[in-house]
Amino acid sequence: MRVCRRANFNAAHRLFRADWSDEKNQTIFGKCNNPNFHGHNYTLEVWIDGNIDPETGYVIDLKIVKDLIKSEIEERFDHRNLNLDCPEFDDLIPTAENISVVCFNLLRTKLDSKYSLTIRLWETENNIVEYSGQ
Amino acid sequence: MRVCRRANFNAAHRLFRADWSDEKNQTIFGKCNNPNFHGHNYTLEVWIDGNIDPETGYVIDLKIVKDLIKSEIEERFDHRNLNLDCPEFDDLIPTAENISVVCFNLLRTKLDSKYSLTIRLWETENNIVEYSGQ
Amino acid sequence: MRVCRRANFNAAHRLFRADWSDEKNQTIFGKCNNPNFHGHNYTLEVWIDGNIDPETGYVIDLKIVKDLIKSEIEERFDHRNLNLDCPEFDDLIPTAENISVVCFNLLRTKLDSKYSLTIRLWETENNIVEYSGQ
Amino acid sequence: MRVCRRANFNAAHRLFRADWSDEKNQTIFGKCNNPNFHGHNYTLEVWIDGNIDPETGYVIDLKIVKDLIKSEIEERFDHRNLNLDCPEFDDLIPTAENISVVCFNLLRTKLDSKYSLTIRLWETENNIVEYSGQ
Amino acid sequence: MRVCRRANFNAAHRLFRADWSDEKNQTIFGKCNNPNFHGHNYTLEVWIDGNIDPETGYVIDLKIVKDLIKSEIEERFDHRNLNLDCPEFDDLIPTAENISVVCFNLLRTKLDSKYSLTIRLWETENNIVEYSGQ
Amino acid sequence: MRVCRRANFNAAHRLFRADWSDEKNQTIFGKCNNPNFHGHNYTLEVWIDGNIDPETGYVIDLKIVKDLIKSEIEERFDHRNLNLDCPEFDDLIPTAENISVVCFNLLRTKLDSKYSLTIRLWETENNIVEYSGQ
Repeated sequence: MRVCRRANFNAAHRLFRADWSDEKNQTIFGKCNNPNFHGHNYTLEVWIDGNIDPETGYVIDLKIVKDLIKSEIEERFDHRNLNLDCPEFDDLIPTAENISVVCFNLLRTKLDSKYSLTIRLWETENNIVEYSGQ
Repeated sequence: MRVCRRANFNAAHRLFRADWSDEKNQTIFGKCNNPNFHGHNYTLEVWIDGNIDPETGYVIDLKIVKDLIKSEIEERFDHRNLNLDCPEFDDLIPTAENISVVCFNLLRTKLDSKYSLTIRLWETENNIVEYSGQ
Repeated sequence: MRVCRRANFNAAHRLFRADWSDEKNQTIFGKCNNPNFHGHNYTLEVWIDGNIDPETGYVIDLKIVKDLIKSEIEERFDHRNLNLDCPEFDDLIPTAENISVVCFNLLRTKLDSKYSLTIRLWETENNIVEYSGQ
Repeated sequence: MRVCRRANFNAAHRLFRADWSDEKNQTIFGKCNNPNFHGHNYTLEVWIDGNIDPETGYVIDLKIVKDLIKSEIEERFDHRNLNLDCPEFDDLIPTAENISVVCFNLLRTKLDSKYSLTIRLWETENNIVEYSGQ
Repeated sequence: MRVCRRANFNAAHRLFRADWSDEKNQTIFGKCNNPNFHGHNYTLEVWIDGNIDPETGYVIDLKIVKDLIKSEIEERFDHRNLNLDCPEFDDLIPTAENISVVCFNLLRTKLDSKYSLTIRLWETENNIVEYSGQ
Repeated sequence: MRVCRRANFNAAHRLFRADWSDEKNQTIFGKCNNPNFHGHNYTLEVWIDGNIDPETGYVIDLKIVKDLIKSEIEERFDHRNLNLDCPEFDDLIPTAENISVVCFNLLRTKLDSKYSLTIRLWETENNIVEYSGQ
């Protein structure tokens, strides 16, 4: 049995590596390399696998997941510049893939090990990534 | 190969246990414990795994799945009070998790064993559960 | 210039008139007349017409509208039974049309008269009503 | 008869006035005032009113509108920082309201005067503005 | 007060005029002129303006509108080729604009004159038309 | 880690077998057997599994996937009649299942074997198929 809670955060970012030339950054990251940043409405799906608790009928109270997403993800990343405001991306390019890894790690440490965790992140309505840990 | 048919039903429900005190029900189930019920538009996704029939190009005719959802799920639960009108929940708290188990069991018995079945149920646009049997 | 804030509330309701026979209620309201109630995820759009304030670039701060919807609508109707829990519907059938009138009146009294107000309410993804006052 | 073409652009922005103190900017614009910017996936709806051309059955070929949105709006604002990269907002706070006015003016000058124009802009799935000119 | 019922139909069509050369059809209608047709999932919104009936709380029972759309629109156009199967388009190019006029006229004759009617038709998620009569 | 790119194409099709009688085609394929075709807006999700490239933070640049979908899928099937214009379906009934197999095979040959591939295809908002190869 899997349960999911969805949430949103709006952030600015830029894809580039300081150890690459401007030309290489432009070739690899194209318009996502705009030095003045651009931004997205990110939609996050947090999927949790576990057994139904026969007492409550819940795998996990989704209100708890909602609050966890708020404290761990939204308060960190919502209305932020991922490159400048968020130390999680000091040495990590804030691609959708890497954002999903960071979200996974932040939530994994707060979640009982009896649960499995999958992160699905929508960067736009056409670009989606999904990560379940290594 | 997996195929899916989506459908909707609108129902009232209340989360509580008769063997718990009002205080405990309120602590565990919060506003979902309103004694006068509240309700949702449920969206059901029925996913069926199987092989393509080379004669028809179908895994299963989705018209059959549509009719099955109508007779087994919609006619049982649409415009009903899950707690009061539906004996399936006489001894089962109608959480999204338990509703998906009930839907799974109702459809599983009607479906050829050559197919695998997964139920995905949206209680709101932010709360989703998924069940594939034990 | 018009601006809109969207919100949701989940409620149970029943369509019927106490001064009608069971037969007439069934004829007119069909399955919406289930005596044990059913329910919906309502989506509310609050549209406000006005001029852009040249100082702020806002017609109205949508954060204010969000808070107003929370205090006036969500706290009243979310996870409630509109017939039993909400005195607004003591003498009013909770059709989508009447719910939108009630929402309009609740917000109209809280909103500066320089603004025009329109309520759009989705009862299901296929049934929508819109009300702008008389 | 009205016709509409939808499109998207992703941009960073910050709401603030240089002639206000940090405190006042924070009070009025809250988290939208983050000095390092945040961002959104903007969805633009361009509505055009006119008569059906009896020869083609079109009010206007939506392919033309699509190309116009691409050249006038997407190439200007997509993957940009509205405050730093876009002179349209040198003296204009990039609220959704003001962005819709700028989009309206850019398209209005390119569109035959026989057509009426309305811009609808989604900043998030819950915040929408609409502008039809003065 | 306005109420709306949404519905869908899936159809094939081709945009062309028999009295034009192939070249002109190609210039004006581009890929929509494919001689072997292409197709769409059309989404129809039927908006009806009227007063709330104080007895029922309805402007009009949306079940009636649903049935009307089924008999007048879906049974005519769903899973049809608009050019070959539907005499309504014998002398009319099946653009979204013209389809909305045909739907308007079909429903207008079935609807009490006390109601105003507006048709909104989605040809794709990015192309929409709206018609309220002349 | 999985990444996904979504795209759309609009096509006409007909479900039938030339080696079956009209009666059998009608019995099996119902209204999808209309000899003059009908059509759909197909939504395609292309899911690719792989490891994050630590240099770029990408599993694969989704711009590459977008271009691949455009050249391999959209240019083949968009605004086409799958039965008449597309040799891929000369001996294959264009059910959603078979379309997804064809899309899978077209993209599989263009994609590095280090990636796993899954195709999800929406024929309507209620009918979905998913294929990951044999």
